[in-house]
Amino acid sequence: MFEKILIANRGEIAIRILATCREMGIRTVAVYSEVDRSARHVREADEAYLLGAASASESYLRGEAILAIARQCGAEAIHPGYGFLSENADFAEACEQAGIVFIGPPASAMRVMGSKIAAKRLAKEVGAPTVPGYSGEHQDNDTLLEEAEHIGFPLLIKASAGGGGKGMRTVTSAADLPEQLDGARREARAAFGDETIFLERLIQRPRHIEIQVLGDKHGNLIHLGERECSIQRRHQKIVEESPSIALTPKLRAEMGEVATRIAKAAGYVNAGTLEFMLDGDGNFYFLEMNTRLQVEHPVTELITGLDLVRHQLSIAAGEPLTVTQEQINARGHAIEVRLYAEDPRQSFLPSTGSIQLFQPPQGPGVRVDSGIESGDEITQYYDPMIAKLIVYGENRPAALERLTTALEQTALLGVTTNLPLLHTISLNPAFRQGETPTSFLEEQDMLTATGEESLPSEVLIVAALSDLAPILFEDGQDAIHSPWQRLGPWRMPGGALNRTYIYAEREHTIQIGHIWDTIEDKNASTQPKSWEIRIDDGPQERVACLRTGPGAWLITRNGSQHRLFTQRDELKLQIAYRGYSYTLHKRQAPDVTTTAHGSGSGHTQKALKAPMAGTLVKINVQKGESVEAHQVLAVLSAMKMEHSIVSPGVGRFSVSTIRKARSSLVKPSSSR
Amino acid sequence: MFEKILIANRGEIAIRILATCREMGIRTVAVYSEVDRSARHVREADEAYLLGAASASESYLRGEAILAIARQCGAEAIHPGYGFLSENADFAEACEQAGIVFIGPPASAMRVMGSKIAAKRLAKEVGAPTVPGYSGEHQDNDTLLEEAEHIGFPLLIKASAGGGGKGMRTVTSAADLPEQLDGARREARAAFGDETIFLERLIQRPRHIEIQVLGDKHGNLIHLGERECSIQRRHQKIVEESPSIALTPKLRAEMGEVATRIAKAAGYVNAGTLEFMLDGDGNFYFLEMNTRLQVEHPVTELITGLDLVRHQLSIAAGEPLTVTQEQINARGHAIEVRLYAEDPRQSFLPSTGSIQLFQPPQGPGVRVDSGIESGDEITQYYDPMIAKLIVYGENRPAALERLTTALEQTALLGVTTNLPLLHTISLNPAFRQGETPTSFLEEQDMLTATGEESLPSEVLIVAALSDLAPILFEDGQDAIHSPWQRLGPWRMPGGALNRTYIYAEREHTIQIGHIWDTIEDKNASTQPKSWEIRIDDGPQERVACLRTGPGAWLITRNGSQHRLFTQRDELKLQIAYRGYSYTLHKRQAPDVTTTAHGSGSGHTQKALKAPMAGTLVKINVQKGESVEAHQVLAVLSAMKMEHSIVSPGVGRFSVSTIRKARSSLVKPSSSR
Repeated sequence: MFEKILIANRGEIAIRILATCREMGIRTVAVYSEVDRSARHVREADEAYLLGAASASESYLRGEAILAIARQCGAEAIHPGYGFLSENADFAEACEQAGIVFIGPPASAMRVMGSKIAAKRLAKEVGAPTVPGYSGEHQDNDTLLEEAEHIGFPLLIKASAGGGGKGMRTVTSAADLPEQLDGARREARAAFGDETIFLERLIQRPRHIEIQVLGDKHGNLIHLGERECSIQRRHQKIVEESPSIALTPKLRAEMGEVATRIAKAAGYVNAGTLEFMLDGDGNFYFLEMNTRLQVEHPVTELITGLDLVRHQLSIAAGEPLTVTQEQINARGHAIEVRLYAEDPRQSFLPSTGSIQLFQPPQGPGVRVDSGIESGDEITQYYDPMIAKLIVYGENRPAALERLTTALEQTALLGVTTNLPLLHTISLNPAFRQGETPTSFLEEQDMLTATGEESLPSEVLIVAALSDLAPILFEDGQDAIHSPWQRLGPWRMPGGALNRTYIYAEREHTIQIGHIWDTIEDKNASTQPKSWEIRIDDGPQERVACLRTGPGAWLITRNGSQHRLFTQRDELKLQIAYRGYSYTLHKRQAPDVTTTAHGSGSGHTQKALKAPMAGTLVKINVQKGESVEAHQVLAVLSAMKMEHSIVSPGVGRFSVSTIRKARSSLVKPSSSR
Repeated sequence: MFEKILIANRGEIAIRILATCREMGIRTVAVYSEVDRSARHVREADEAYLLGAASASESYLRGEAILAIARQCGAEAIHPGYGFLSENADFAEACEQAGIVFIGPPASAMRVMGSKIAAKRLAKEVGAPTVPGYSGEHQDNDTLLEEAEHIGFPLLIKASAGGGGKGMRTVTSAADLPEQLDGARREARAAFGDETIFLERLIQRPRHIEIQVLGDKHGNLIHLGERECSIQRRHQKIVEESPSIALTPKLRAEMGEVATRIAKAAGYVNAGTLEFMLDGDGNFYFLEMNTRLQVEHPVTELITGLDLVRHQLSIAAGEPLTVTQEQINARGHAIEVRLYAEDPRQSFLPSTGSIQLFQPPQGPGVRVDSGIESGDEITQYYDPMIAKLIVYGENRPAALERLTTALEQTALLGVTTNLPLLHTISLNPAFRQGETPTSFLEEQDMLTATGEESLPSEVLIVAALSDLAPILFEDGQDAIHSPWQRLGPWRMPGGALNRTYIYAEREHTIQIGHIWDTIEDKNASTQPKSWEIRIDDGPQERVACLRTGPGAWLITRNGSQHRLFTQRDELKLQIAYRGYSYTLHKRQAPDVTTTAHGSGSGHTQKALKAPMAGTLVKINVQKGESVEAHQVLAVLSAMKMEHSIVSPGVGRFSVSTIRKARSSLVKPSSSR
């Protein structure tokens, strides 16, 4: 076995490979781009070397630089992960020439299977069913039109070098063909530098079924059953499971046999995946082969109990397979969902930024493969996948229940994610019944309306409690200086605190009054405190609240406990609750209804009054300056907290207004 | 299925049960003692109610109070977990009478199997092999002596109501019997209120093998294979695995058949475990039955793919078993280790306190069942188990590798644990070969010498770097006031900083000099900085260090990366590294070799000099007071850090010494 390998990748797959290497006693070498200098895959490796600038072409795609590092640090092999150089036959060849083992198939097999046209030809040769189509060398429009008529409409145009849906077009009639051909060629050229396209019959409402294979250098090649990956957005999978509800044992055996036949014909070695379409009548068609470890490999690992990376390493080291086809013992049901930093409501636009909180789900049968931890960054440079959540259950219903629960246990703040979409999918009746054609998301109308729009009242309550925490949870000596302490136990409604938040363009006001009788002992940090709370014009109710950690809250309402996580900014609050995250914008309202300034009614369009007596610590606007709605104009310090004075609308500041504000400017006190 | 259940337990097993309930949509009710008010099992439940004071008898053992809560909140069933009320037949009966389902066997089966004597009698009746012995009603010494001669020596005395080794004695000759009988009775009476004992032949070097069974209310009862739990300390299991290397398929089938025969004869329903001894010749003897879910049930879950808690709930709700004996498909290998807050070097004395850091291992095939998170407390009141680490591998060698790695990935600070012992076991050649009699720990000399004694130099380096972090990692505006900035880039050796630590009664001095040329850009928080470091009289070497989080460090030394975690107190540093934790005591040495006081040689026995110019902020000793070695005498503030002035030995303070110190007393500056 190798003593040291280089992992030419980043993110969750680098971490995944690292885990198995550690177990096998193999030293790991990470490579990184400048923005990944402190990324998790770098932190967890035994050694780490800089590749270059952030963009993939200047870092993770620099095959020669990676080979040079491998040679220099004495790595005997390179694991390419997926993406980047993983399906680059030239790189595999360069490794071989440098005497470094490429952990993957031989360059020759990669070349054959890497071309969709060549792969389809090979499949046909060995008698595997393929989708009727044209993949010849003649790429002129006349030939293609003739072939299209032969295949029949609707049909698909695909890029020969393609993947990920790039260069793919649906054509419903002969008249549309020329224009769609032009578009597909343009896209293919831009994405792959190769405008070769091919035509294929459009299979109606197919499922995407793929077969995992594993072959050694001694001619043994087995399959590990299927994965169904029908649920896709923009032609990229987001939900994968095994077994597929659509396969009978007979069909599984047939597809497995066809898959191994194709892979053997290609001289395939190591882990690979053959993709098929399955129509409603149980006909399957070979599509293409992915000559690498797949994103969704954990599904197969959970079902078979095998560690695919361990087998990849053994195979690459020249060892024979330690399992036979007969020994493959698939059991139970596994589902993977991909958690992306993207906004499903904005055409899955990637979202970048700092992951302020990532609390992955945990528990029996839950696996999380992730490349990040709280505090890490999602940059614009790479795939915005945050993590894969994979669940195992003894059958599909149990796995589905576990999936929904795992999603609800996930707390993530800082970037927009597809977590609400995944949760919605997990509860979708058609998904629960296994009715999952590749058009699932469109058919179920999930591309537009995703996620809860309504705001749970628990979120509003915790928003206000966390915002007012320095006052409400004040303990110890300082508490006697708190206005709360001086005012006595019952100050409802005259002494209540108010906070107003804007969510989905609606304003919500929360009024909080303290109740003292639930404080049972001095150890206040672990004692829930209770408050009388009123939301908008709703009834007054009593809510107990316990801070269980930084930004972690447990509230009890009507005897029910709720866990929430918060992240506070000056102007907004992010709150994670039951798998969803909510961003609330703060609106300054009078904090104490009776203040030193008298019973002021707060902001008006014409004048701003300080909501409470306090110290003006910051003024952000110049006289005469134009301001936006909700812009922070000034910051007031009072009751140990800073309060933003926010513009109630679009406007301009007059001198007098500013002067009035300045008149209350007081230097910060020197007490700590 | 139930809509709401009460979990009459705490810690990891309550969390475990909660997880499955959540998935099944069952509302959960937690109960808690006063010290557990903010415990994790309370935080994660849907509802939670106070039971009483900390001691189990005033809280978790209060069956009637628990039943009252269940009735009041409308819980339809109670899951007792393990320990506490789980094997209390009276409680099971009280539940039944209250119309609340007890999630476990019927009281009748619990009564039969709860008595070791009755259980053994039943086993004999159905033809199950038992250890030759005497378990009759005559408890007088004469009868027992006669029976002992019949059984032969060595033999064991055991408490009939016993468990956990209490009341158990080994007797090697007839002469010793009376005295040992007295002792066993005393222990049995104290522990169980019942001094009934029985005699048993001592099986030489047996293995502990147990069979998991699952029975429904419709007469179906199956077994889920075995667990080997031979590695025990003080008769409590700490390592459990399945399958056992000692069982052949034939023996497994035989033992499973015997186990189900006994359980059926007892009218057993729900999950239970039959314990056997297995001798070196493949003979097995029924010992006793545990009429509850076991601590080690995850091992069986990983091997069979079944969720035992889910089955417990279904069975209790009256549903028939959904799996048949033939459908049980055990696969792969699973090992569990129990992580305890205890000191193996001090007779496994429990350790209490706050878990300052618990970073459990993660990765494919690693499951952690834990009742605590960082910041939680281990109290004196309950079992000191922190977590169970359970690994799955496709075979035993793979599982072993995963176990070792998982232990090395675990970081725990705050209490003494058996983590070093578990790590030592995982690497032990006899364990790796599966040679695990119940006397394993004694035979392998693991009860005295456990864990690494030597201190890795990485720990010393990080100790010094973390101690000096406010100086070394200072960024931004303040940095220009740092003496480092003023002194220029190369100040070795004259400007080096020193720190001295005591570990295992040895002193180690680390000298740190800064190198500036590795700071590549302004984003210093994610850029490793490098230092010239010398340990004791060793060579100077260059070490790069990156702070990856609060108390989390990544250092690079000779191209190798190391991850460590630190927790700092005034006088000591705790450091977690590769599964071990180290407590270093600080010793104040001159920080800067040339100070305002001249080239002082530091402390002497007769006088103490301030190690550097600074502000004396605290004096802990009175004139004439006696002091211990390493006692903090005073605290000096300098370079934005506090430095403790520590007594170099035992001594007494004279007036002049204190006066000298006071002469440099300056009030703390008012800057923040």
